[in-house]
Amino acid sequence: MNVSQEQVSLTGHPNLFQHFNRIATNKPVDQMYQRTFRLDTEKTLRALYVVGTVLKVNLNRSAPPSSTYFSVKCSPNVQYRITPPPAKSGPIPTPFNGNTVLLLTMDTASEVENDSKLSVMYYGKKTEVLGKAVVHLTAFEISLDVDADRDGQVERNNPNKGSWMWGPNGHGAILLVNCDSEHTCRKSLDSEHAEVTRVSDLKDMSPMVLRTSGPAKLPEGYKLTMHISQGDAECVRVFRTRSTAGMHQTLTENLFYKSFVKDYPLVVGGEDLSKEVPCLWGNAEMNFYVEGLRFPDKDFEGLISINLSMLEPSSQGFPETPIFTDRVVFRVAPWIMTPNTLDPVEVFVCSTTDNDQFLKRMRRLVENSGCKLKICPEDMNRGDRWMQDEIEFGYIDSPHQRFPVVLDSPRDGDLQDFPYDVLLGQDFGYVTRTAYGKEVSSLDSFGNLEVSPPVTVNGKNYPLGRIIIGVAFPTATEGRNMTKVVQDFLWAQKVQEPIALFSDWLLVGHVDEFMTFVPAPDKKGFRLLLASPDASYKLFRGLQNGGHGQAKMFDGLGAEEITVDEILSDEKLKAENNYVQSCIDWNRDVLKRELGLDDDDIIDLPILFRVMENRAVAYYPDMVNMIVLGKNLGIPKPFGPKVDGRCALEAEMTSLMGGLGLSCTYIDDFASYHKLLGEVHCGSNVRREPFSFKWWNLEM
Amino acid sequence: MNVSQEQVSLTGHPNLFQHFNRIATNKPVDQMYQRTFRLDTEKTLRALYVVGTVLKVNLNRSAPPSSTYFSVKCSPNVQYRITPPPAKSGPIPTPFNGNTVLLLTMDTASEVENDSKLSVMYYGKKTEVLGKAVVHLTAFEISLDVDADRDGQVERNNPNKGSWMWGPNGHGAILLVNCDSEHTCRKSLDSEHAEVTRVSDLKDMSPMVLRTSGPAKLPEGYKLTMHISQGDAECVRVFRTRSTAGMHQTLTENLFYKSFVKDYPLVVGGEDLSKEVPCLWGNAEMNFYVEGLRFPDKDFEGLISINLSMLEPSSQGFPETPIFTDRVVFRVAPWIMTPNTLDPVEVFVCSTTDNDQFLKRMRRLVENSGCKLKICPEDMNRGDRWMQDEIEFGYIDSPHQRFPVVLDSPRDGDLQDFPYDVLLGQDFGYVTRTAYGKEVSSLDSFGNLEVSPPVTVNGKNYPLGRIIIGVAFPTATEGRNMTKVVQDFLWAQKVQEPIALFSDWLLVGHVDEFMTFVPAPDKKGFRLLLASPDASYKLFRGLQNGGHGQAKMFDGLGAEEITVDEILSDEKLKAENNYVQSCIDWNRDVLKRELGLDDDDIIDLPILFRVMENRAVAYYPDMVNMIVLGKNLGIPKPFGPKVDGRCALEAEMTSLMGGLGLSCTYIDDFASYHKLLGEVHCGSNVRREPFSFKWWNLEM
Repeated sequence: MNVSQEQVSLTGHPNLFQHFNRIATNKPVDQMYQRTFRLDTEKTLRALYVVGTVLKVNLNRSAPPSSTYFSVKCSPNVQYRITPPPAKSGPIPTPFNGNTVLLLTMDTASEVENDSKLSVMYYGKKTEVLGKAVVHLTAFEISLDVDADRDGQVERNNPNKGSWMWGPNGHGAILLVNCDSEHTCRKSLDSEHAEVTRVSDLKDMSPMVLRTSGPAKLPEGYKLTMHISQGDAECVRVFRTRSTAGMHQTLTENLFYKSFVKDYPLVVGGEDLSKEVPCLWGNAEMNFYVEGLRFPDKDFEGLISINLSMLEPSSQGFPETPIFTDRVVFRVAPWIMTPNTLDPVEVFVCSTTDNDQFLKRMRRLVENSGCKLKICPEDMNRGDRWMQDEIEFGYIDSPHQRFPVVLDSPRDGDLQDFPYDVLLGQDFGYVTRTAYGKEVSSLDSFGNLEVSPPVTVNGKNYPLGRIIIGVAFPTATEGRNMTKVVQDFLWAQKVQEPIALFSDWLLVGHVDEFMTFVPAPDKKGFRLLLASPDASYKLFRGLQNGGHGQAKMFDGLGAEEITVDEILSDEKLKAENNYVQSCIDWNRDVLKRELGLDDDDIIDLPILFRVMENRAVAYYPDMVNMIVLGKNLGIPKPFGPKVDGRCALEAEMTSLMGGLGLSCTYIDDFASYHKLLGEVHCGSNVRREPFSFKWWNLEM
Repeated sequence: MNVSQEQVSLTGHPNLFQHFNRIATNKPVDQMYQRTFRLDTEKTLRALYVVGTVLKVNLNRSAPPSSTYFSVKCSPNVQYRITPPPAKSGPIPTPFNGNTVLLLTMDTASEVENDSKLSVMYYGKKTEVLGKAVVHLTAFEISLDVDADRDGQVERNNPNKGSWMWGPNGHGAILLVNCDSEHTCRKSLDSEHAEVTRVSDLKDMSPMVLRTSGPAKLPEGYKLTMHISQGDAECVRVFRTRSTAGMHQTLTENLFYKSFVKDYPLVVGGEDLSKEVPCLWGNAEMNFYVEGLRFPDKDFEGLISINLSMLEPSSQGFPETPIFTDRVVFRVAPWIMTPNTLDPVEVFVCSTTDNDQFLKRMRRLVENSGCKLKICPEDMNRGDRWMQDEIEFGYIDSPHQRFPVVLDSPRDGDLQDFPYDVLLGQDFGYVTRTAYGKEVSSLDSFGNLEVSPPVTVNGKNYPLGRIIIGVAFPTATEGRNMTKVVQDFLWAQKVQEPIALFSDWLLVGHVDEFMTFVPAPDKKGFRLLLASPDASYKLFRGLQNGGHGQAKMFDGLGAEEITVDEILSDEKLKAENNYVQSCIDWNRDVLKRELGLDDDDIIDLPILFRVMENRAVAYYPDMVNMIVLGKNLGIPKPFGPKVDGRCALEAEMTSLMGGLGLSCTYIDDFASYHKLLGEVHCGSNVRREPFSFKWWNLEM
């Protein structure tokens, strides 16, 4: 056999060289997915090629012994390049040069099976033909697609879909923990079911689409398999549509026109790490639904990979081998808390035998603030009025779905069934952390879990604010602490990096006993309010100097009454408050450092404490323990000394808040909350609007 | 009382303003450690000041009611600044302006207690004096110091000691897991003892020094406390010197001149999260020794903080409050593997009843290579000859100490006692991972755990190479895998980011059955050697073409003999090796991608496999399963067909390796290893020199 001119004409064709560098994915060839492919001079091979990849053929390897030259011929829709590149003025056919490698690509999917061809001729020294290897090629396009650009649409083959990056210029798809419950009766978390229990549940899952293009029939024996790692399997489930009829319908159409849950079989997740996916060819799309099962935590960063591989059959019953793998990466959305500066939606309080008047005042305040009051009845709260302490409202967010999620405290007081039995529901999620075998303390109540408004600290932005918890002094050899599992959970959410304050100096031990945030029209958009015995003493001394030493605190509350003079002359009270102020000042320094605050960002509220059992409780109703509803503040009525018939503490408070355009409502919680060591904030909870800022746009 | 000229003269003194910005730490004031400090007009206060911090006094807060002006006076060694700054041409005394704050610093430690003074006068509208607050100040220098610049010396108050950064321009101290055993009899890991069992153990710990400077006597009631977090407590222990006599001695002096272990009490670690540290004043140093207890793992990033706080006494028996906290951060050194390109130190093999000849050949090879042969006797190995599989040698490194550490496989064959009983010792560490309740497979043997030489991949440097393990195909619905706890451990070390290959296609299932690395004088400094059935067939076909079709494999091994013609005509063998080549090619593609290799970096070795029970084993001794000792290779003697009296496989191998300047020694392991499904590499293990590159200089 002689070498025909036609056979060698394509070797090193300059136009093809150029073309070769701008194929499908627009990636440089050496960054494309490359697969070693072997030729055979003894039989004609058939090969499946995935558009966007490179077939790499080591020509030496399959060459008959003593081969010294070769030539390459291929169909017009096949491009190739030889490395090391043969000399332009070199002989034809081309001499072998070390590890001569042929890189092959194809531009578009084949119309029919085996419609393209590659052949390589091998020659000995005297251009005698030693062998010929022929391959019939079928090109397919396959792409596992997600919403990697976070616009709510599943785009086609995003080049960044296989990795995850934070920030406005970042990329990577987002997954929600499916922690709500589509069923309102016989309630349970949707993530506890390895099935799609209702079609409405699909909205809580991330859409993923398998797009294919090519001949209607795939060569015999090829398979597609979806697979995940062992570690990811406990964090994610993937379902797919069963019927091919619905394939071109959008998710919305599916939701409205379908209702058979058996139409969404489980693909991977749990025990199933790998499963075959039916191949759909021609120009087809198959919809998948991806469900998160676990929030980020100490042992789970939140990233999940889902892989789709094409398997090539082996002869003689050997296992198939993967010839192409496409990969997408999701990050599980973190649980996000909402600070006082966000608009309130709903206010939750408990009804008890003794708080009618309190509820009346609250209802008026809440309605004036344009939101809803939800009352947890006594048969549910069983006398546990501390709505703040059992739960914390937050939310999870993605480009395709967002809903509130309640974090249930391991406190587990008599209110313990409320979050699961009442709050959990359709598009209302639930998450908890259990302190197995560990003692739970008062510091595990969520009056001890707050969040700051957005701040910038030494140039670092926290557009979602920072979580604040209270613990024992790190220096204490003993002390109460927030349970480690809850702390680990909070830290693992990452987007609101927590700050640990010292709250163990308080008998109840909650940060909301000495601090809160209120919105402000100027500066950083908020003020930090701190309880301040010093401010209180200053105010009382001013009253004394002004001739009001005989004005009474607790006026009208009977046995409690005490004059300004008596308070100022109580040396024990003075010493106690001196200690309290030093504890608050320590926290003040931490908050200034960790939130980047100036003294002008902080307002000291006149509040006194007493020390019982070596720990502090508010002496008179603790005004800082307020409910913040937009510009309306619901403040524990302090029952301070009256000057000209007006409570001096209320006057001071109203004046301080009035400067910020905030309106104060004083609510009498003396008997029903204060005497039980809590106040308005401890007895209420507010679900708020989520941030407009999207967490994935954080620069980390 | 009138305002004297002297009292106000220092207010806003321009020289002091200037001076204020270049104090001790050279940090801007707003980045210094700031502490809120309160004045009292009713009594003279005493305050302790830590050099390098800022005392922040809110002048309004302590001002008597109706105060409108103030003036400040202080000793010459006290600097202060007022914010907002008073107008230069403003009245004297200064009018209050919103939140008037006084920032106070001192340059140097006091000579004697209370040697400095601050006083603030408060005035009413008519400059009438309303009150005077006086504070006596004592300045101390305190610094908890570590080797944050990684030069082996504990420098004084490194400004970066409180954080950790990778890279040559990085910073942060380093901690070793104290996983060796100072006791050779009654052996146990030093980290298992909450005490310093021998003074030589101090070398394995990171030095930490508490440096203080100030008056010989500290004011009554002040304390120093060292404290760590709950999470860190299981990862670290801190000991200190008890005797004050040795305080000015260096660590080395301590090691030589002291021997009483009771001289090193435990400070924190385990159950002890916080402990008082004796205060040493004047110009004193106290030595601490910090011991790591846990390697980085899935739930432990490796970072540890140690805090030292000064506590101020409170009146009336209230708890002390911290007024200053110094913090240092350590990273636990990762376990590092050593690739074949590093110089060998010791070679380990087992003595069995049937491997005398093998041992003789190995001894010669090892001695020629200038290192030591260590033979594990039969009473220890109990017939388990797979020295490669039970252990992996690595090391841990820090600026102050470095030693080898053996990773013990959960394989736990009859060799299982060898690593703990024989290898563990003084300056020879031990670590293992236990697969509690999980089944261990052959893939958990460490023939399935290798490491590449240093590589650069798409611009990313891996100066310590990358770990390589073998697992099942990710697409397989079932298959053997390396145990998760071991994989988690390997990934958590971070500095040699692992690559997972597919090795489950092999009956034994180890990556060392189809790949190894050898040093090379050119290109990347090494070559990847891969077993290649294609290369073998090509060689055999060449022999056939050259008229050597009747040459026999396994010549002299009796019943095994078979001719080249017979091998080439065995269609079943061909099909099996076709499958094997596709498995190796899949791994080849992964290795090229993950190690950034070209085809020129890879050498195909002529090796055939057979398939048994659907999985592959080497047909003739698997030459890639070699021992690499510098430029000397110990290769399983392949017993290939002879041409002119010379084994054609050896000739090919010698020629391929000769091109790299490597010398081949063929070791007959046919009966004693090959027939038992292993070869030279499986039956040996090499402890190598560590990298000269320091892991903390990695750019992460």
